[in-house]
Amino acid sequence: MFNNVQRILIFGIMLTVMLAAANVTASGNKTRNSNDTAIVIASFGTTVPSAITAIINIIDKTKAAYPNTEVRVTFTSNIIRSVWKERQVEAQRWLDEGIPKEILFVKNIISTIGDLREEGYRNIIVQPTHMFYMEQSQDLQSYIDALASIKTTKEKWRPFDTLVMGRPALGMPGDRYSYHTDVATAVATLAGDAELAKKEDAILLYMGHGNDHWSTGIYAETQKKMREVYPEVHTFIGVVEGTPSLNDFLDHLQYAKTKKIILKPFMIVAGDHAKNDMAGPETDSWMSILSKEGYEVKPVMEGLGSNDAFAALFVSHIKDVADDNGLLLQ
Amino acid sequence: MFNNVQRILIFGIMLTVMLAAANVTASGNKTRNSNDTAIVIASFGTTVPSAITAIINIIDKTKAAYPNTEVRVTFTSNIIRSVWKERQVEAQRWLDEGIPKEILFVKNIISTIGDLREEGYRNIIVQPTHMFYMEQSQDLQSYIDALASIKTTKEKWRPFDTLVMGRPALGMPGDRYSYHTDVATAVATLAGDAELAKKEDAILLYMGHGNDHWSTGIYAETQKKMREVYPEVHTFIGVVEGTPSLNDFLDHLQYAKTKKIILKPFMIVAGDHAKNDMAGPETDSWMSILSKEGYEVKPVMEGLGSNDAFAALFVSHIKDVADDNGLLLQ
Amino acid sequence: MFNNVQRILIFGIMLTVMLAAANVTASGNKTRNSNDTAIVIASFGTTVPSAITAIINIIDKTKAAYPNTEVRVTFTSNIIRSVWKERQVEAQRWLDEGIPKEILFVKNIISTIGDLREEGYRNIIVQPTHMFYMEQSQDLQSYIDALASIKTTKEKWRPFDTLVMGRPALGMPGDRYSYHTDVATAVATLAGDAELAKKEDAILLYMGHGNDHWSTGIYAETQKKMREVYPEVHTFIGVVEGTPSLNDFLDHLQYAKTKKIILKPFMIVAGDHAKNDMAGPETDSWMSILSKEGYEVKPVMEGLGSNDAFAALFVSHIKDVADDNGLLLQ
Amino acid sequence: MFNNVQRILIFGIMLTVMLAAANVTASGNKTRNSNDTAIVIASFGTTVPSAITAIINIIDKTKAAYPNTEVRVTFTSNIIRSVWKERQVEAQRWLDEGIPKEILFVKNIISTIGDLREEGYRNIIVQPTHMFYMEQSQDLQSYIDALASIKTTKEKWRPFDTLVMGRPALGMPGDRYSYHTDVATAVATLAGDAELAKKEDAILLYMGHGNDHWSTGIYAETQKKMREVYPEVHTFIGVVEGTPSLNDFLDHLQYAKTKKIILKPFMIVAGDHAKNDMAGPETDSWMSILSKEGYEVKPVMEGLGSNDAFAALFVSHIKDVADDNGLLLQ
Repeated sequence: MFNNVQRILIFGIMLTVMLAAANVTASGNKTRNSNDTAIVIASFGTTVPSAITAIINIIDKTKAAYPNTEVRVTFTSNIIRSVWKERQVEAQRWLDEGIPKEILFVKNIISTIGDLREEGYRNIIVQPTHMFYMEQSQDLQSYIDALASIKTTKEKWRPFDTLVMGRPALGMPGDRYSYHTDVATAVATLAGDAELAKKEDAILLYMGHGNDHWSTGIYAETQKKMREVYPEVHTFIGVVEGTPSLNDFLDHLQYAKTKKIILKPFMIVAGDHAKNDMAGPETDSWMSILSKEGYEVKPVMEGLGSNDAFAALFVSHIKDVADDNGLLLQ
Repeated sequence: MFNNVQRILIFGIMLTVMLAAANVTASGNKTRNSNDTAIVIASFGTTVPSAITAIINIIDKTKAAYPNTEVRVTFTSNIIRSVWKERQVEAQRWLDEGIPKEILFVKNIISTIGDLREEGYRNIIVQPTHMFYMEQSQDLQSYIDALASIKTTKEKWRPFDTLVMGRPALGMPGDRYSYHTDVATAVATLAGDAELAKKEDAILLYMGHGNDHWSTGIYAETQKKMREVYPEVHTFIGVVEGTPSLNDFLDHLQYAKTKKIILKPFMIVAGDHAKNDMAGPETDSWMSILSKEGYEVKPVMEGLGSNDAFAALFVSHIKDVADDNGLLLQ
Repeated sequence: MFNNVQRILIFGIMLTVMLAAANVTASGNKTRNSNDTAIVIASFGTTVPSAITAIINIIDKTKAAYPNTEVRVTFTSNIIRSVWKERQVEAQRWLDEGIPKEILFVKNIISTIGDLREEGYRNIIVQPTHMFYMEQSQDLQSYIDALASIKTTKEKWRPFDTLVMGRPALGMPGDRYSYHTDVATAVATLAGDAELAKKEDAILLYMGHGNDHWSTGIYAETQKKMREVYPEVHTFIGVVEGTPSLNDFLDHLQYAKTKKIILKPFMIVAGDHAKNDMAGPETDSWMSILSKEGYEVKPVMEGLGSNDAFAALFVSHIKDVADDNGLLLQ
Repeated sequence: MFNNVQRILIFGIMLTVMLAAANVTASGNKTRNSNDTAIVIASFGTTVPSAITAIINIIDKTKAAYPNTEVRVTFTSNIIRSVWKERQVEAQRWLDEGIPKEILFVKNIISTIGDLREEGYRNIIVQPTHMFYMEQSQDLQSYIDALASIKTTKEKWRPFDTLVMGRPALGMPGDRYSYHTDVATAVATLAGDAELAKKEDAILLYMGHGNDHWSTGIYAETQKKMREVYPEVHTFIGVVEGTPSLNDFLDHLQYAKTKKIILKPFMIVAGDHAKNDMAGPETDSWMSILSKEGYEVKPVMEGLGSNDAFAALFVSHIKDVADDNGLLLQ
C-alpha cells in the first residue's frame, strides 16, 4: 500500500508542476523566460562524502523539473564550507572520489548570487533544503532580502528583477502557505519509512537536528501527523540538540509494545550526526543507548534528500515561489 | 513557601535593576541621560475595560523602576485600536468609567514613536508585553527596524540615536539571551498559581493564546519546567488557537488524579478570550467542556500582567536591552 | 504674450491630469480607488505667517485636482516645526490670525503617516515642495523608504500597499524623469516674472536657498534655460547659502545694461530669507548691497508656491508617481 | 614651485596616514587588527589596456600605505566587466600583454565581497576611485549598504563587522567631510598640470566625464578653485556628457589670450573618452573642434590616477573612513 501512495505522490507533484508550466505557457501572460532565471539550492551542507548524494538528488530533481533553468548549489554552513575549502588543496583526490566540482568548490550565498548576476541572471530563486524555517532559513532570508534591496539611480542597472527564497520542507510562519499542509504533504512522502517499520513490526524513530535557541513544535506536530496517517506504526521524532531529546521520550517507547526500532535521520543528509550521534559506536549515541535499553535497533543511513518524493517537495516549493513572483520556470 | 519565593523574586529583580542603575551612575561611563530617553510599552491590547488593569500594572512597574524616564503605551493589534477609536466618540463616558486617557486615545506604534521624536526623545526602547517572540513580536520588530533605519544626509538630523526592542516574557530566538533561562525566570514568578493549585489539590490549567501559523514548543517547554519546579502540582498549558488544543491533552488530565482544576489565562490580560473561550457560558468554552467531563473548575479571571513578579520580567528585559545599547535608564 | 503662455500651461497641466483620470476610470484596469489613498504635501515649512499662503496654495491646487483624495501637510524642517509647537501654547491667537489648524498643529512626517495609517489609508503619496532633490528630499526619501520597508508575518497586516515620494519641482537624479524637462516645464511657469522684468526693463534676479553641503548645477542650468526661453530678459539665479553667491556674479550684472532689478525669491515661500537676506534693511541683504552698487531694486515678496502654474507642477508630479505605482487619484 | 608643492603634498598625506597609524597602535584603544580587514578599490574601470596603469597606481599606493592589509580591485561598470569577461577566453594573450590577473578576471562588487568574506575578512572598506559622488558612487553605496544590512539570528554568524565606503576624490554631500575642503586638497594635487600650462603659456583644459542625469556644480566649483590657486593659468573644466559641454564655454576660451591649450582628462584613466572624445581624429573630438577653431592643442594622455598626489587622495579617504569606523589599518 505505502509504496503506491509514494509513487502516486511523486507522480502527482511532478505532474502538477509540469501541467502548471504548460498552462502558463499557453495562457502566455507570463512574459519572462528562463534565459535569465536561475535556481540556487541552498543546503546546510555536509562534510561526509557519502552523504552528498542526498543533496545531489535534490539538485537532479530540480534540474529534471526545470531543464532549461540554471541550477546551482550553495552550502549555508560556514564551517562546512571551510572544510571543503581546505579539501580544495587536494582537489584531484576528491574529484577522483566522485565529489562533484560544484560541491568541492562550493561558494557562499553572496558569491553564488554575485556570479549568477555576472552571468546575466536577473531572476534568482534560492531554495533552502532546510527542514523548517528556523535559524538557518531566517539567516538565509536576511542575505536574500539584503541583496534584493539593492537599488540603482537608473532602474536599468538594478542588479536583480527578482531575488526570492522558497520555503523549507515543513513550511514557515505566516499565512501564505499553511505549515500544517506542508507537514501533511511531507508526511505523505514518508510512506516508505512507515511501511518498512510496519513490515518489521518496529517503532519508527527519527532523529532530527533540533536546536537550543529556537523553540519549535514542528517535531511534535509532525510526529502527531505521522501517527494519524500511519496508525499502525509508532512514530517518534526526537532531536540531537534541544527539545525533544531522546531522554524526553525514552520512557514512552515502551508503549509501542515492540523491542524493534527502525532508526533514521530526520535530516536531508545522513551525515555527521547520522554517523555519530545516531548510529555511532560511542556509548552516548542513540544506537548505543537504545541497544542498552534492550531494543533491537536497525539504523537506516539515508537522508531524506535521497527520498525522491521528499526531494520533490523542494521542487514544488520552488514552483510556488516562482508563481508568487510571476516567474515562469521551464 | 511559594509566596516567599515570589516576594524574594520581585524584590530581587527590582534590586538588580536599581543596583545596576546606581552602579552605572557611579562608574560614569554611560553619558547619555534619561532626558531624551523614552520607553514604549507595546501591548497586544484588549477591549475589555476590566482587563486594562493588567497592562496598567506593567506600565506602573516600569515607571516605578525608571521614574525619570518617559513611559508611553501602544497597542499592536489594529483591530483592538480600532475599537478604542470608535469609543473616542463617547470619550467622557469611558474616562468616567476609569479608562486612562492614554488607553482611550491609544495610538499605533508609528505615531507613538513619531510623537516621541517630536518631543525630543532620541533614544526609545519599545518593550512588547507579548508572551513569546512570534507573529506579534516579529511584526513589531519590523516596525522598529524600519524606523531605526532612517538615515539623513547630515548625521545631526538623524531622528533616533537608539530605537530598539526588548524581548518578550519567555524570550526569543537567538543566543543573546537563552529562552530557557527566560522560561525558568518566568516559571519562578508563577509560584502563587502553583501554590493555589496545591492548596486546592487541583490541576493548574493555563489557557495560552497560541496560533495556527507559527509552530512553537514554548507552551510544552514551559509546562515541563512548571512540573519540574512545582512537582506537587499537575500543570497543563493549552492554547485557544493552534497546538496544543484542549482536545490534545483532555485525556491526560485524568493522570492528575483530582477532579479539581484551577483554570487561568496564560496571557497578559484576562480579556475576551478569558471571558468567553476560557470561562464563558457557551458549550465550547473550556469551562463548559471540562465541567461536562466532570471536573470542578475554578476560573481565575486575572491576566499575568497583574502578577507583580511577572510584570517585573518586562522591567528586567527593558534593562537588558538598555544595557545592550549603552543606555542608562533612571 | 507671457500671461497667455502661463494660462495655457496651467490649463494644460490640469487638463492632462483630469483626462488621465477619466481615461483610467474608463479603461478600468486600475482597481484601487481613492478611499484609502492620501497625499501628503511635504514642505520645508516657514515660521512667517504671511508666507503660509504659498504653501496653502499648493495644498489647494492639489485638493482641486484630486477632490476625493485626502490631502495633508507636513513640514520637514525640525526647527520650523518646533517654532509652531511653541506657538500652540497660544493656539487661539494664531487661529484668529488666520493660521490654518493643520499648519499650527503640523506634525512630523512619521506621525503624519502613522495617523493616516490609523485612519485606514493604505496608499500614500508624499509630495515634497522642495525646489530640487538635495538634502531635504534625500532625507525625506529615507523616511519614506524606511516606513515603506515594514513587513509583516501575514501580508494582510502590512501597513502600506504603496508609500512613495514624488519628485521636487526641478526634478531629481536618474532617468525615470529627465530633470532637463522638469527645468524646462518649470521655466515655462515663470513667464509672468520674465514679463514683469521685461516691462520694467529690469534684470530678473532670483534668490534661491542653496547650500554648502551639496554641489549642484541646478541654479546655473535653470538660469541658462531662462535666458534661452526669455531672451529679452537678463535672468540671474543666486543663492543664500553656497554657490553661486551674490558675490559670484555681482560683476556680471553690469552686462545687462540696466540699473533696474526685479528681486524675487526662487523659493516656495517668501519667508525668513526673503524678509531678511533678500529684502531686509541690514547692510548685508541683497537689497542693501545692490542698492549700494547703484541698482534700483524692486523686491517681490511672493514665493513660487503662490504662482498657480508653478504650484501645478507639484500636482503634475503627484500624478506621475501615482501612475508609476498604479494608483488612481480622483 | 609647483613641483615642490606637489612633493610636499604627497609626503604630507602619506606622513599623516603613517603617523596616525603609529599613534593608534601606541594608544592601543583600537583592538581590531588588519588580519581580517580588507580594502576594495572600486574603479569604474576601463577596457583600454594602456589606461589600466592609472588604476594600478592607486592600488599600489594603497598597498604601500597599508602593507599588511589585503587590497582587491573591482570595476563598477557592468559593460566594462563584460568586455573583460569576453577577453578571458584568450586569457594568456592578455596576461602576456601585461594585464594583471586581477584585472583580467575582475569580479563585480557582490562576488568580490562574497569572496573576501569566505576568506575570513570581516571588515571591508570599499574605496571608489570616482571623481565625485554621483550615479556611480550612489549605486555602489546601495550595494554596500545592502550587504552591510545582513543580520543573523546569532550575532557571531553575522558576515561583516564593518562594511563601509570611502568618499570619492572631490567628496560627497553632507557635513561629515566638506566637499569644499576635498576640492581644495584635490586642486593642490594638480600643481603639475598648472605648472605645465604656465610653462607652455597655454590654457589648461580638462575633460571630465559628466552626465545628463545628475545636475552638479562640482566642475564649475573645481574650475573656480583652480583659478584661485593657480591664477597665472586659465583653467577650464568641461565634460563629455551633460553640463558644461565644450560648446558652453568655447567662446570664453578667447579671454585667455593664448591660442595654446593643454588638454587633459579630468578622469582617473586616459581611456576610451580620452582616446576618442578628447583626442581622437573624428571631427567632433575636442581636439578636432579646437584645432579647427585655431588652437594649438597638446593632449596629455594620462589619467589622474597616474598622478601620485591625486592617487594619494584615495589613500587618505580610506584612512578617514577607517578612523570613522574604529578600524586600524596597517
